[in-house]
Amino acid sequence: MTTGFVSLVGAGPGDPELLTLRALRRLREADLVLDDALVDASLRELAPTARRFFVGKRAGRHSIEQAEIHRLMIRAARRGERVVRLKCGDPFVFGRGGEEALALEEAGVPYEVVPGVSSAIAAPALAGIPVTHRGLAPGFAVLSGHAEAAYGPILDGLAPGSLTVVVLMGLASRAAIAARMIACGWAPSTPAAIVYGASHAGGATWRGELGGLGAAGFATELPAVLVIGEVAALADRLPSIAYVRHPEPVPLPLPLPRT
Amino acid sequence: MTTGFVSLVGAGPGDPELLTLRALRRLREADLVLDDALVDASLRELAPTARRFFVGKRAGRHSIEQAEIHRLMIRAARRGERVVRLKCGDPFVFGRGGEEALALEEAGVPYEVVPGVSSAIAAPALAGIPVTHRGLAPGFAVLSGHAEAAYGPILDGLAPGSLTVVVLMGLASRAAIAARMIACGWAPSTPAAIVYGASHAGGATWRGELGGLGAAGFATELPAVLVIGEVAALADRLPSIAYVRHPEPVPLPLPLPRT
Repeated sequence: MTTGFVSLVGAGPGDPELLTLRALRRLREADLVLDDALVDASLRELAPTARRFFVGKRAGRHSIEQAEIHRLMIRAARRGERVVRLKCGDPFVFGRGGEEALALEEAGVPYEVVPGVSSAIAAPALAGIPVTHRGLAPGFAVLSGHAEAAYGPILDGLAPGSLTVVVLMGLASRAAIAARMIACGWAPSTPAAIVYGASHAGGATWRGELGGLGAAGFATELPAVLVIGEVAALADRLPSIAYVRHPEPVPLPLPLPRT
Repeated sequence: MTTGFVSLVGAGPGDPELLTLRALRRLREADLVLDDALVDASLRELAPTARRFFVGKRAGRHSIEQAEIHRLMIRAARRGERVVRLKCGDPFVFGRGGEEALALEEAGVPYEVVPGVSSAIAAPALAGIPVTHRGLAPGFAVLSGHAEAAYGPILDGLAPGSLTVVVLMGLASRAAIAARMIACGWAPSTPAAIVYGASHAGGATWRGELGGLGAAGFATELPAVLVIGEVAALADRLPSIAYVRHPEPVPLPLPLPRT
């Protein structure tokens, strides 16, 4: 293989069991892996022959610039390397994957996207909360809690109770989000949940009401997903759904063929 | 293993490469697989030892009742069988997976959910459309186009241009959806796309504007996803992203350990 290639790969919510077959294949074949901050440590064992760079960004911590990530990918691909840009969940859900795809397209570097299981859907599911449910939620909206200027106008428009609201990166802003939704007409008694570390070891779920969301939660470093809507109450009726991680990691010698 | 078990499994958008490792594991171990209508034929080869029942529902075609699906799952599990209920995309996105989980919980049958790659995110992605993108879409909403009584009130509330709108099962109602969004203040020039058969052989994408969506499209039986919002125009700037299916199916003898 003389031409390099970049795969923008979704890693899923955490457990390596929720990787796609293609994601595992690309990790196995990789020469270079560029890791996101939230990627589960156990995923790092799946690319045993690759060099790895941590390029994650987390609020309030030092991190490398987006343009530098683009340069790293493009330079390695031009050297003929197979590059995996590994992102939590799905690469096109708040992952800046679109910007990275544009940079690769403009540089003339061959690339692909490998969609992943998004925490926006999987985290609620693994806590017993279907984001859609007949008679309760005919749809759902997915927002980032990172910037009120972005999520505020969307929340202002949503017809109260008309769909499930899922907020990623919303733990710090949960009080502001709850207040804004209540001001828009959502009942304070609307069921709500905070799902921590879905499919990670030590995951946990807080269940309550929108009115209590701002003061709620657990002290943990695990990533959290907020869910607001009638479907959140289904978690109480599906107590047996708790996700079980495999005791051992995914075995390494799966004989996947080369593409 | 003396106790039966039911896995509600997401099959992803179509290509077996987008199955999760856990989904493949469950198919391999299954005694009985209950298939959805839209599940790709190539996935059927992945559970070589299981009996299979087709229990799919499609608009206008004869199908078995939801309660009968519940009875089949519960009866098999009580006989000690490992049952896979295989659904397109993710089992909790318009899949009635929540109803099935409730039925299993109430029957006292052990069960789990195995989240899958949802077509709501993956179909746009594989056509070069990130559902979120900095400066263009700070979030997205996912609706079903099946019943206007359900999607209408949601569309009426969405602030025009504030987020990406993704509609599953919306091909037949695309004219009504476009008209309703334009009546709500969305510009007829808003970029739009119809993604057919993402990750299936013969997939294709129509690209145009919201004002032209009602009359647009191709004649095909492949499942379609509608995408409305500024991000749809990114497909034009990411022409190299076209998804490539593997020439051969996933090899069967992957030595996955038993759970």
